[in-house]
Amino acid sequence: MAKVKAVQYGCGPIGCGVTRYAAQKADIEIVGAIDVAQELVGRDLGEVAGLDRKLGVTISAEAEAVLAQTRPDIVFLTTASALKATRPQLETCLKAGINVVSTCEELAYPYWREPELAAEIGALAKRSQVTVLATGVNPGFLMDTWPLFMTGVCQEVKKIRAVRIQNASSRRGPFQKKIGAGCTLAEFQERVAAGTLRHVGLAESIAMIAAGLGWRLDDITETIEPVVAKAPVKTDFVTVSPGQASGVKQIARGLMGGEEVITLEFVASVDAPQSYDAVYISGRPDLEVVIQGGTHGDVATAAVVVNAVPRVLAAPPGLVTMKDLPIVIAQG
Amino acid sequence: MAKVKAVQYGCGPIGCGVTRYAAQKADIEIVGAIDVAQELVGRDLGEVAGLDRKLGVTISAEAEAVLAQTRPDIVFLTTASALKATRPQLETCLKAGINVVSTCEELAYPYWREPELAAEIGALAKRSQVTVLATGVNPGFLMDTWPLFMTGVCQEVKKIRAVRIQNASSRRGPFQKKIGAGCTLAEFQERVAAGTLRHVGLAESIAMIAAGLGWRLDDITETIEPVVAKAPVKTDFVTVSPGQASGVKQIARGLMGGEEVITLEFVASVDAPQSYDAVYISGRPDLEVVIQGGTHGDVATAAVVVNAVPRVLAAPPGLVTMKDLPIVIAQG
Repeated sequence: MAKVKAVQYGCGPIGCGVTRYAAQKADIEIVGAIDVAQELVGRDLGEVAGLDRKLGVTISAEAEAVLAQTRPDIVFLTTASALKATRPQLETCLKAGINVVSTCEELAYPYWREPELAAEIGALAKRSQVTVLATGVNPGFLMDTWPLFMTGVCQEVKKIRAVRIQNASSRRGPFQKKIGAGCTLAEFQERVAAGTLRHVGLAESIAMIAAGLGWRLDDITETIEPVVAKAPVKTDFVTVSPGQASGVKQIARGLMGGEEVITLEFVASVDAPQSYDAVYISGRPDLEVVIQGGTHGDVATAAVVVNAVPRVLAAPPGLVTMKDLPIVIAQG
Repeated sequence: MAKVKAVQYGCGPIGCGVTRYAAQKADIEIVGAIDVAQELVGRDLGEVAGLDRKLGVTISAEAEAVLAQTRPDIVFLTTASALKATRPQLETCLKAGINVVSTCEELAYPYWREPELAAEIGALAKRSQVTVLATGVNPGFLMDTWPLFMTGVCQEVKKIRAVRIQNASSRRGPFQKKIGAGCTLAEFQERVAAGTLRHVGLAESIAMIAAGLGWRLDDITETIEPVVAKAPVKTDFVTVSPGQASGVKQIARGLMGGEEVITLEFVASVDAPQSYDAVYISGRPDLEVVIQGGTHGDVATAAVVVNAVPRVLAAPPGLVTMKDLPIVIAQG
């Protein structure tokens, strides 16, 4: 069987994680890499991704040229969380007639926040006869597809609650800083106000769940607050004093008929007592499903993105979402 | 939207469970019922299923006539666990050009045990331009589709183990007797030898997992042994003395390259300390996922069967399995 030819578009930490996994798969060949960062252009992707070998793929800032020269089957698009920021790069891929799997959080289920843009992207993909999927661990799996999957054994669903608790003390330094660990509470609020602290994707996950269940929500709301350290915490990257933020607690709610029917709780802190992911369904029957010890975000995101490739290549043209694809499976 | 017209084929406990759930759904209309049991023919399906109302559907033994008169979109085929026993009824449905969702355990993934028969059924379905799926809680969900679904976040899978522990003390009397509760150990072995005690479907689940992961197994083995009561147990239906069987422990193993790579453990007894379902994946990362309190088999089987209807109606013609369908979701 011919290998799937892939281009890595976006060579930051998530893109590098995708590359590391894709590079080890016998059925995928990475044929190109794109990033505009000056410090990456001209370097070998294998080296940048932290592989112990070169991939013979030089990172280029010229997206159209890379796509034209390499004619990949698929692009791993891992550039930005916001759909508006990802859009031009996505359009470049679609106009070149290439399928895309992206980690763009707002693209995972864009019909709530950006319905017109979603329609445009879907139409462009159809015209180009290619398929676009955005996925990852969250959104893409833990707080949307997994809860929906578990409803399969339910005869009635009244409410869904998904919880993701991460002890981030052993995660990357940038991740620890991103969640506000070590900030004063004033700094934390400033970063919330500036929009740099928010985990993107909870509203998308809620909208995907609702669409899957056939629920028409009245509204989706979100709150962000600091987790406040009670005791000092020290990791390899940050030092947190009592009273400072040790991380973030973000809650999103889906409301229908005045009731909170979907609740997503995302907590990431350097002092969480334990990590776990859980889905709670109120219905017939009630269900409580727990991933003990949680799910490593970076590993899982790269896994889902690459594991989704066969499903995307087999899907009909257009913009697809995880709720309508066949289950994404690791290939042995 | 027009309602989906359904015929209930097989009006035993599982079929009645399917009917009870289907009858409450606004988008399904039950238009016919088939069973050959003398004590059921001529009775109203709603009454037989334990609904508090008649459905206006009289159970008939004449399958072809019912299908010809009612022209359903789908048949719920819940007659037998063995594929050979289900085959003639299945063929009647397919030849009549009607889609089927069945609970026939051996049909859930028939390519291991009955590859030729599977090919024949698939070809017949394609000729008739209809789709066949067999599903349920197990096989169909807990020990195959769910473990496969969870591998989506894994970059490597070395081994999969799925465990289903059921405390059956509050289940139906026939179920408690089926699992051997209250048998002497000699009676238990006689029933194992007669083939009346085995839970059907573990080998099918293993074969489905292997196919999903792209693994070529050397062999699938199964063992059955009694759970031996240490203390007396009394339920509404059986009395178990110490030293008698309180239930069954059945283990199936998938072997590849001399190694046990898939293990399914099915335990149902009237004295299990707690009920739970779990999936353990050894890989990158390891995963441990638990349904606290377990999953009620009869409720869940009816749920999956009925919830699968939109996916089956949208699927391409042929014999499909859960691993290749889009995720089955409860509709709100």
